[in-house]
Amino acid sequence: MHIPLSVKKRETAMTHPYRSHTCAALTAADVDQTVRLSGWVHRKRDHGGVLFVDLRDHYGITQVVTDADSPALELLDSLRLESVVTIEGNVKARTPETVNPNLPTGAIEVYARSATVLSKAEELPMPVAGEQEYPEDIRLRYRFLDLRRETLHANIVTRTKIISDMRRRMEDIGFTEYATPILTASSPEGARDFLVPSRIHAGKFYALPQAPQQYKQLLMVAGFDRYFQIAPCFRDEDPRADRLPGEFYQLDLEMSFVTQEEIWETMEPVIQGVFAAFANGKPVTPSGEFRRIPHAQAMLDYGSDKPDLRNPILIKDVTEHFQGSGFGIFAGIVENGGVIRAIPAPGAGAGSRKFFDEMNNWARGEGFSGLGYINIKDGSPGGPIAKNHGEEKTAALIEALGLGPNDGVFFAAGKEEQAAKLAGLARTRVAEQLDLIDKDRFDLCWIVDFPFYEWDEDNKKVDFAHNPFSMPQGGMEALTSQDPLTLKAYQYDLVCNGFEIASGSIRNQSPELMVAAFEKVGLSKADVEERFGGLYRAFQYGAPPHGGMAAGVDRIVMLLCGAQNLREVALFPMNQRAEDLLMGAPSPAELRQLRELHLRVVEPQKTASAAPGRVVAPDAG
Amino acid sequence: MHIPLSVKKRETAMTHPYRSHTCAALTAADVDQTVRLSGWVHRKRDHGGVLFVDLRDHYGITQVVTDADSPALELLDSLRLESVVTIEGNVKARTPETVNPNLPTGAIEVYARSATVLSKAEELPMPVAGEQEYPEDIRLRYRFLDLRRETLHANIVTRTKIISDMRRRMEDIGFTEYATPILTASSPEGARDFLVPSRIHAGKFYALPQAPQQYKQLLMVAGFDRYFQIAPCFRDEDPRADRLPGEFYQLDLEMSFVTQEEIWETMEPVIQGVFAAFANGKPVTPSGEFRRIPHAQAMLDYGSDKPDLRNPILIKDVTEHFQGSGFGIFAGIVENGGVIRAIPAPGAGAGSRKFFDEMNNWARGEGFSGLGYINIKDGSPGGPIAKNHGEEKTAALIEALGLGPNDGVFFAAGKEEQAAKLAGLARTRVAEQLDLIDKDRFDLCWIVDFPFYEWDEDNKKVDFAHNPFSMPQGGMEALTSQDPLTLKAYQYDLVCNGFEIASGSIRNQSPELMVAAFEKVGLSKADVEERFGGLYRAFQYGAPPHGGMAAGVDRIVMLLCGAQNLREVALFPMNQRAEDLLMGAPSPAELRQLRELHLRVVEPQKTASAAPGRVVAPDAG
Repeated sequence: MHIPLSVKKRETAMTHPYRSHTCAALTAADVDQTVRLSGWVHRKRDHGGVLFVDLRDHYGITQVVTDADSPALELLDSLRLESVVTIEGNVKARTPETVNPNLPTGAIEVYARSATVLSKAEELPMPVAGEQEYPEDIRLRYRFLDLRRETLHANIVTRTKIISDMRRRMEDIGFTEYATPILTASSPEGARDFLVPSRIHAGKFYALPQAPQQYKQLLMVAGFDRYFQIAPCFRDEDPRADRLPGEFYQLDLEMSFVTQEEIWETMEPVIQGVFAAFANGKPVTPSGEFRRIPHAQAMLDYGSDKPDLRNPILIKDVTEHFQGSGFGIFAGIVENGGVIRAIPAPGAGAGSRKFFDEMNNWARGEGFSGLGYINIKDGSPGGPIAKNHGEEKTAALIEALGLGPNDGVFFAAGKEEQAAKLAGLARTRVAEQLDLIDKDRFDLCWIVDFPFYEWDEDNKKVDFAHNPFSMPQGGMEALTSQDPLTLKAYQYDLVCNGFEIASGSIRNQSPELMVAAFEKVGLSKADVEERFGGLYRAFQYGAPPHGGMAAGVDRIVMLLCGAQNLREVALFPMNQRAEDLLMGAPSPAELRQLRELHLRVVEPQKTASAAPGRVVAPDAG
Repeated sequence: MHIPLSVKKRETAMTHPYRSHTCAALTAADVDQTVRLSGWVHRKRDHGGVLFVDLRDHYGITQVVTDADSPALELLDSLRLESVVTIEGNVKARTPETVNPNLPTGAIEVYARSATVLSKAEELPMPVAGEQEYPEDIRLRYRFLDLRRETLHANIVTRTKIISDMRRRMEDIGFTEYATPILTASSPEGARDFLVPSRIHAGKFYALPQAPQQYKQLLMVAGFDRYFQIAPCFRDEDPRADRLPGEFYQLDLEMSFVTQEEIWETMEPVIQGVFAAFANGKPVTPSGEFRRIPHAQAMLDYGSDKPDLRNPILIKDVTEHFQGSGFGIFAGIVENGGVIRAIPAPGAGAGSRKFFDEMNNWARGEGFSGLGYINIKDGSPGGPIAKNHGEEKTAALIEALGLGPNDGVFFAAGKEEQAAKLAGLARTRVAEQLDLIDKDRFDLCWIVDFPFYEWDEDNKKVDFAHNPFSMPQGGMEALTSQDPLTLKAYQYDLVCNGFEIASGSIRNQSPELMVAAFEKVGLSKADVEERFGGLYRAFQYGAPPHGGMAAGVDRIVMLLCGAQNLREVALFPMNQRAEDLLMGAPSPAELRQLRELHLRVVEPQKTASAAPGRVVAPDAG
């Protein structure tokens, strides 16, 4: 007899009060056995006196059958769906025409001789079987029902397997998981911290970590090596479609005595391995073949630092072609230092002009001044640009772009940054409209050599482009002699199918270089000491060169599950207003709690007035 | 050539800028190789022109040697300890008399041809080599130095290995790790919650979980099975020697369709396996042989629900012996319904009376009225109890207790609970004083059948003795017909060497039974709905029988590392005032942050007055 997971030596199968087998265990080999099963009543079908019940547990579904000869009939007939029962009965072979080859237990059914109710279900607020669409607030409030549904249940199981697989791969190559503190100090990741008031220290607050950045660096300075962590991270951000409110998970890692090359070589097999293990046979870029695309090149070729390499379109710079062009708008843009970027649209020329006009309208809708184009039909270029640019020049342009007799091409023109951005968006949209993207593939690449600084237009000053803890390329010499905006960092992203799935850098572990780097953004040595005191102090006492990265677990799971929404791969997510509808969080605190925390709640102003809010005093009673 | 962890295919060993080997890798087989090592300057010894440097990294230590013939001498000589360097040189065999068999690299040394400084260390606030005692505030403030020290570094590595081993064992028997939310609602574990103010919802707060209790039960109701998690838990408690302030970790688990017997049988091999794997050869109670001691029995035999089974002393109830005894104090206690418990002290009679008197003084110091005794010397019982109790009765007592001619025995007398408590403490102290405890053993047992309710003397009412979510034995019938204080729960602890290392129960998954159980402690159905709404609601829609437990990871690691303090097995612990001295947490919030969170800080009163505190208004400027 097959002994399932749940039955151990001291209790033989049939003395276990709830089950001799799980609902996924019975096969034709078990026919004629007496068995006990427990699970949820998933579906019921009454075939004129014969009642079929699909009994479901975590592992699978078994068909239970009963009829008027069995005392189980009345009970099972009376039960609502999703009630929990224990069934005792005999395993019977199904007739050949009723065998279900898609179900592991599809060769058998269990004839119920008795049934015991373990938990009766009330009228359900949403159905479990069938997975019909349901409003999200109901799904989140009754998440325990939602999670029983087939796709979400499977997504969550896949999520746990992916995380377990990540752990195993990291450990296999000598990484060790260290859990870093969750009650800690504010971390300078740029987003807003969640604060936790201290009861013992009036007026002081802990912060939840936006990432374990400083701790993992401290671990390297503390002499550990090859750290990783499936790390919970917390950011108090306004709702964003691409991030869960509140908390999310990173595969976070750090290495000592390391170059960025070594980090890439170390992590490619891990990431590739995880993807390949859960890609359901879809091709994944082989390890060792992830392209390393310099940031500037990515902005040129793809108009994005998160390029979707499944998209075959390559953007080309055609600025030179429009110098002194008869198409005055572009000529003027070029004369004023702007650029023209071409986005080929293979085969689009054969279609209607409507496609080109709609693309132009779309670009305007996105806030750009428009998207010029040439549509080539049977070798003949059409549209206002072709007409004004001149026949010979247009022919040269088409040849330079390698366009065929029925291709189209769009042009994004303007200041470099804006033109690159529009070109990138247009590249994506053209490929989507023309269905050029092979959806059944995972294309991975590194974007490398990110700029170290960027221009902060709002505050009219230089600011860190990404991670302030990254090492500038060229070190102190470059930092003191180069235009800051031309400096590159040892900083990189890992991109999959147009999504940034990881980000990392070699860290700046020199106290002098750290101070020099922060001075460029207007922060003094004293500021560095105050804000990053732990890390800055640590760098004084022997800090190894180190670097690492962090990969977004939720995003990777979403890609591998083929889900469209992060909440479809999360267990108990909050809604977009950062509310847990199931547990009722957040909720008002008791006066006693506020008193202990030395806090008063100040009701927000109804108007935008800057006057102080009304005090809701916990002491007032 | 041996290729270490850090060197991968695209970079051959000697082109890696930092190391061809780790500091634990080189052996006699590598003699004459040219190598590159990086690490910290652990120790330096100058033998008249020949400088020996112990170079240390995460993996180990390699002896580096240099002399006046090498350009590395001057640099290495000038560096402070704990500076980080890269050494290039040749592997040489040590002379036979200088081979160190205790060091993996003890057969060789590396003659340094060149040295490069990666990071200079300033004057150290505390030494790393040698592990001398240092004040804890310095150790915590410079935790990155403290963590480089041998014992703490090894403890942390052991900790990570234990946790990884737990994970592997749980996964091997079909458990799945699910991470439950950290930003959630208040959980009713009885301790104080850490609150997290919501920015979006003025005046509302999240709570950090004291344990994932409700979520793991919801997971079972959601149809998952065999959940586990290495779960961070948060309690805002006042400093306690046996708990880290702020956060701690549990091996948390839950199973569906389960009996408590099955939970014990499932978890014994896991816990035993983890202990055996890290016990360094010390014996561990074999799996399948953990004793299951009813709570009442434990209180009788050991005077504790956390008995140290390595202690051979068994307490005996001798109340009957003192009925109408000539020793009036005990006779009176018995007459008033009290009990007398005997704590044998094997061999103690042969020693001095001082031991017995000091025990008595100790008991008074602990707040008890005293500890009577009989000391038997060469078969002759001494002390006031023997004298007054009468010769014959004393002989009967001694025989009943099986005492030998030079044993002693102590008596704890009073109301049952008090006498049991004193007897338990005395049992421990006697064994310690007489050195009866075999410290090199791990004795594991289950304490089972805990009382469901207890009498709350402060509030003169019945309250839950432990977990309010536990199932009362006997179900609804027992709950409605029995004296509540006689009810037992399907509730159990796992105890090792006198420490509770895990606690668990079968849960009450019936909504009716839940309401009935809470009514006994004075909470209405409406209270249950309000406080545990998510779980209570879930139980209406098909809840499987389920149960589980949670084991204290920090405590288990401490036992296995033989550490005396939880901070010796924690990475970045807070001090006993719940401060992170390294990162500077908690710290004041910015006014902007408080404004966003709709909060004002109220300074605590200097006096104990109940008047409202002065408002420190963020809006005041």
